[in-house]
Amino acid sequence: MNPASDRLARQIRFIVEVDRLKNVLRQTWLTDASRQENSAEHSWHVVLMAHLLAEHVPAPVDVTRVTRMLLVHDIVEIDAGDTFAYDAAGNADRAERERAAADRIFGLLPADQIEEWRALWDEFEALDTEESRFAHAIDRLQPLLQNLHTHGGAWRSHGVTREQILERMRPIEHATPGIWPYIVSTIDEVWAKGWIRSVE
Amino acid sequence: MNPASDRLARQIRFIVEVDRLKNVLRQTWLTDASRQENSAEHSWHVVLMAHLLAEHVPAPVDVTRVTRMLLVHDIVEIDAGDTFAYDAAGNADRAERERAAADRIFGLLPADQIEEWRALWDEFEALDTEESRFAHAIDRLQPLLQNLHTHGGAWRSHGVTREQILERMRPIEHATPGIWPYIVSTIDEVWAKGWIRSVE
Repeated sequence: MNPASDRLARQIRFIVEVDRLKNVLRQTWLTDASRQENSAEHSWHVVLMAHLLAEHVPAPVDVTRVTRMLLVHDIVEIDAGDTFAYDAAGNADRAERERAAADRIFGLLPADQIEEWRALWDEFEALDTEESRFAHAIDRLQPLLQNLHTHGGAWRSHGVTREQILERMRPIEHATPGIWPYIVSTIDEVWAKGWIRSVE
Repeated sequence: MNPASDRLARQIRFIVEVDRLKNVLRQTWLTDASRQENSAEHSWHVVLMAHLLAEHVPAPVDVTRVTRMLLVHDIVEIDAGDTFAYDAAGNADRAERERAAADRIFGLLPADQIEEWRALWDEFEALDTEESRFAHAIDRLQPLLQNLHTHGGAWRSHGVTREQILERMRPIEHATPGIWPYIVSTIDEVWAKGWIRSVE
């Protein structure tokens, strides 16, 4: 009989369960193009980025809340899978599948932590706070960098257009306006190289 | 010509460089034993664990500083490689190799961020603060869970003894005494199952 308190046992149960996020593959590739990245690696990358780039948000943001949101923003994919951003059909029932996953996975934690972490996940999804808007901006910037360094990567292999990408990147313009010119210029560069097409 | 400021360009250069941590393999395995895990996934896992388990530290800790330390504690492995904890020969020149790596990798950032992040990495290594001791405890607990769920995993394949593991886990006793009985009991369980040996 293991002397872990019920509280610690629940925390550890959750920690072991989320190990499965390391097996959820995303459409984006590592910058060396050796393989697709997974959602756990992506989550580490975006949390680090949030800490490095928080100065670009005009209003003060609570980076700890941004961190917590980004740490768990993708764990519902353990049940619901990763839905490619530009996949309209897959995104139709995404919200429902992900809510059910959030219920199950956060439900493993002790009661007060279920509430706390579920609220963070809901905040990320609702996009109503400065923190969630910054978290979303970072979540869009990271795959842009991966695609830029893999000759268009997932954009290219899925035939995504310049206009779709610009639209997808809009949260960056609103959350971190100082970074936006870099985004536009990067998309232009990728387009000029012929890695993505344009509907124009 | 890309309109990113020099500051943003340096931040992005660093962000792209650390993508390589996703290719640094550790000795521990995913809990489903499908493959070894990498240091980026491990880093995500430990940051999340720190947020979930901070209540077990008796003194108040600055979880943001713990987060920042854990986000970058392994990035020197991009140059220096991962050194298995129980590999005495590999650990002899580890500190020197890792310091050179820290100089190069943090050196990609803007000057004030070089200083800030290098100081965090040094703090983690020096183990002089409550935050660094908690970060180390989590860094030891995570592979214990991976090994527990893979029939002894890296402990077993490397013939690590019960006594070596207990010694390696000591930072958990000091930083989070409430978790220690669970650790001792887990090691006993793994030993009783015959997955690790004892020198006794």
